[in-house]
Amino acid sequence: MTETGQPLFRDDEALLREAIRLARARMLAGRGGPFGAVVARGGIIVAKGWNRVTTGLDPSAHAEIVAIRRACRRLGTFHLEGCVLYSSCEPCPMCLSAAYWARLDRLTWAASREDAAAGGFDDARIYREVALPAGERSLPSTQMLREEGASVFVDWLAKSDRVQY
Amino acid sequence: MTETGQPLFRDDEALLREAIRLARARMLAGRGGPFGAVVARGGIIVAKGWNRVTTGLDPSAHAEIVAIRRACRRLGTFHLEGCVLYSSCEPCPMCLSAAYWARLDRLTWAASREDAAAGGFDDARIYREVALPAGERSLPSTQMLREEGASVFVDWLAKSDRVQY
Repeated sequence: MTETGQPLFRDDEALLREAIRLARARMLAGRGGPFGAVVARGGIIVAKGWNRVTTGLDPSAHAEIVAIRRACRRLGTFHLEGCVLYSSCEPCPMCLSAAYWARLDRLTWAASREDAAAGGFDDARIYREVALPAGERSLPSTQMLREEGASVFVDWLAKSDRVQY
Repeated sequence: MTETGQPLFRDDEALLREAIRLARARMLAGRGGPFGAVVARGGIIVAKGWNRVTTGLDPSAHAEIVAIRRACRRLGTFHLEGCVLYSSCEPCPMCLSAAYWARLDRLTWAASREDAAAGGFDDARIYREVALPAGERSLPSTQMLREEGASVFVDWLAKSDRVQY
């Protein structure tokens, strides 16, 4: 059993070590920030990812998102049921939310958000911000035209050939 | 002033209406879920996005993430300071976090997460999950090999030519 009370599975350590290896190797090679991730199914690697924010000019290109995208492309699906995500560091709220949208079975990570903060990354701060009501966040936001926006969902539910996700 | 107490800016309504128009038009054309987004700078559109989860086989391809990626590519940068994000619906925690990572100046949206829930989307649930301690979430997670994972950040801070983001 681990800190969060979940049972350990065979191969978890080896797959997590591969995510950590990727984090270090790609970072040292100048490919992006110090983060790596692996998506696996039944203990077999489906896709690997590493941080490509600065090299790919994409603030969403965190290791986990890159690995999820690649795994979906490889499996020809937009859902990853039956798959596990291994991350060198605790996923930030963007990547954690992506794990929900991707319907991953479970997550395993090594370093904590506090370790990431010590490395100069905003994960812990963004976790705090996302949990706040919109009006209390440091990122200013406004809501308007709610009725017009909500009316799109009426058309969506009326669309008989919609593909739910 | 709006519900969250932020001042309104010129053109906000027109830009938000374009995000709503995109949400409806692309959804009706079978291009993905009912969401649209626009990134603008100084009232001028830099990039548009719409949901491409099911058509692009990418669970991270929400309208906002697509618009952020395109705006970065167009501006040749991985930060969007000076830019505003307009969304047909309140950004989910994945997209909200991406807005922080992209360093957007502010956000404006129309429909609420509750409207999205009525349309069959998990945004409100994922907001609740992300705010929970890892051990209490419905998505099982484990942490292990923390020291090994954290050691990558030591190498990162020692890398003199690192590109911070």
